[in-house]
Amino acid sequence: MSELNRTVPRVGMVGGGQLARMTHQAGIALGADFSVLAASPSDSAALVCGDVRLGDDRGLEDLLAFGKSCDVLTFDHEHVPEPVLRRLEEEGVVLRPGRDALRFAQDKLRMRVRAGELGAPCPRWRPVSEPGHVEAFAEEAGWPVVLKAARGGYDGKGVWVVGTAAEARTVVERAAAEEVPLLVEEKVDFSRELAVQVARSPYGQVAAYPVVETVQRDGICHEVVAPAPGLDPDTAVQAQELAIELAHALGVVGMLAVELFATADGVVVNELAMRPHNSGHWTIEGARTSQFENHLRAVLDLPLGSPEAAAPVTVMANLLGGEDPDVYGRYVHVMAKDPGLKVHFYGKQVRPGRKIGHVTVLGDDPEELLARARDAAAYLKGDPQ
Amino acid sequence: MSELNRTVPRVGMVGGGQLARMTHQAGIALGADFSVLAASPSDSAALVCGDVRLGDDRGLEDLLAFGKSCDVLTFDHEHVPEPVLRRLEEEGVVLRPGRDALRFAQDKLRMRVRAGELGAPCPRWRPVSEPGHVEAFAEEAGWPVVLKAARGGYDGKGVWVVGTAAEARTVVERAAAEEVPLLVEEKVDFSRELAVQVARSPYGQVAAYPVVETVQRDGICHEVVAPAPGLDPDTAVQAQELAIELAHALGVVGMLAVELFATADGVVVNELAMRPHNSGHWTIEGARTSQFENHLRAVLDLPLGSPEAAAPVTVMANLLGGEDPDVYGRYVHVMAKDPGLKVHFYGKQVRPGRKIGHVTVLGDDPEELLARARDAAAYLKGDPQ
Repeated sequence: MSELNRTVPRVGMVGGGQLARMTHQAGIALGADFSVLAASPSDSAALVCGDVRLGDDRGLEDLLAFGKSCDVLTFDHEHVPEPVLRRLEEEGVVLRPGRDALRFAQDKLRMRVRAGELGAPCPRWRPVSEPGHVEAFAEEAGWPVVLKAARGGYDGKGVWVVGTAAEARTVVERAAAEEVPLLVEEKVDFSRELAVQVARSPYGQVAAYPVVETVQRDGICHEVVAPAPGLDPDTAVQAQELAIELAHALGVVGMLAVELFATADGVVVNELAMRPHNSGHWTIEGARTSQFENHLRAVLDLPLGSPEAAAPVTVMANLLGGEDPDVYGRYVHVMAKDPGLKVHFYGKQVRPGRKIGHVTVLGDDPEELLARARDAAAYLKGDPQ
Repeated sequence: MSELNRTVPRVGMVGGGQLARMTHQAGIALGADFSVLAASPSDSAALVCGDVRLGDDRGLEDLLAFGKSCDVLTFDHEHVPEPVLRRLEEEGVVLRPGRDALRFAQDKLRMRVRAGELGAPCPRWRPVSEPGHVEAFAEEAGWPVVLKAARGGYDGKGVWVVGTAAEARTVVERAAAEEVPLLVEEKVDFSRELAVQVARSPYGQVAAYPVVETVQRDGICHEVVAPAPGLDPDTAVQAQELAIELAHALGVVGMLAVELFATADGVVVNELAMRPHNSGHWTIEGARTSQFENHLRAVLDLPLGSPEAAAPVTVMANLLGGEDPDVYGRYVHVMAKDPGLKVHFYGKQVRPGRKIGHVTVLGDDPEELLARARDAAAYLKGDPQ
């Protein structure tokens, strides 16, 4: 409990990235005390949070001290090793989501096994420990195939599309040298990518957000359109029910994002994340309750807020760094051109290709909103179209 | 300029109340650096801001040190004495709004004189330095009359409605003893109270928000309905034009709130405030750009964001403290009952009658939304209806 107000719990978020930054922003309205464990004072969340602890956000010692000073811990990333999570729980630290849930977000092999047991539609896949496994799999599934690091990947890192046995061998040997477990998946023939988010509280309440379309480039989410244009209502409900089922079955507390491939035969599960997710940044303005607020409400075991859309269509575009670091200097042009546009900047040092913010626009016409969001993102990157 | 990113300016806000708290929240998305000068670490904004300086938020020494470390200062309150503001400007500190504008918000006598010169519709009024002035004024305007402290009042403090010469004498003598200058105003026969807000940038750009209805009790704003139900469009435009004219004429930079009486003969100016204002809290969810973001954009001389409404109707109700300090413990009931409701808690110690937060609901029907907001506010106060 807080020293200042004994009736209010303290939430600690592990990791100081932009997800923690935007969770802090949502937490201000809730009035719960919010702390962040960040690796550096220049981390995105550390720049704006009222209570910042500096330390190793993956190591037992700092996490234990942090956990003991908070009522509940939650996570900005999936990188805390499982043995550390185990020790934290043994020491009485409340983790939400807990270790039992997180291991499915941390390990794609475990996730695929469990999703299969639950009957969730998944790509064909196989664990890989030697190059021959890939070739054998590709004989069935056809080249190219997708190799994935079971742990540690994000934003396209740890994913390789390989078209030949030789290419596969290079990846498998490098992974073996680094002791990274691999799996191979069929390259799904999808028409587009979708994502669906649900919040789940310890009480078991769930709130499912509208299904969105995500546009990925180089493994990075570039754009989100909410709701997914032209999605047939049955498929939307199927996707939401799938996410709800996974949230219950995996024991998720907080936000669960399920990234999906839309195929001729329905949706197929691509990835899971148990935290606020890039595919849900649109909810800050575009839903009655943002993913960040519902993550906190779930973590605090409060009743969840309405995930209902606040406008017919919301479009989010990520803002990637360009060559010129002066993003702020370009605000004047973007804001003057489009007063209805909302800019979110994460305070991160600009590097080419790095996610440094996002923009959001609300309205009626997906194409018009996409054009506005792309225009702003291109301008802010220093690359007007 | 920030030490971390030399291209981003640092805004300093003087005063650590809920207005600074919510301005910080808006500033996170803009990515400008934001600091607050607070009197105590338990001040509303000091609990959540990333950069808190503790000091006397009305005294020259601390304000000067604060100002020298920021690119621009703005204000959570109007209580910095004019001689201090003058010295800050002489020392090169950039104040937005500046001293020339602020003196009209700080001194109701000056405001009335200047508003009169500008032809703005005002109540009849007169300066008061002895009891006889009130009696003479009341002979023309009729009893009761309204006595106001020219400086230092807020939330009904410093305002007295007096019905007799004897009552007036008591107020005037007490004010004289405390060296508080007074004015007397006619008690305006109004049908309801309205408010209109505009943002104005140093560049001279203005953005006018929809005119809202405010419901005051005991001098405290209780509820706001945006836009004001049934307001005829001509009156709405008249009110917006009046606010724009005042913003330009007084040289306001940032938000200007104009509180108005609606009378049979049109609107009459009641009070002015040159900062984010309680009558604009609805804009956080209810407008494309909140008053807090537009205040910052104006202070940073960025193009202003759209003040357009995000829903047909938005209702805000203030949350006042009751006898039981455990507001957080009552969240579960309010959130379970109304998942579409948005709670804003300021982190302030609960005292009976103190403004400790607000709730916002969006929809179509003002009466339904008012009922929901009142219900939540009553419940959170610990006084279910």
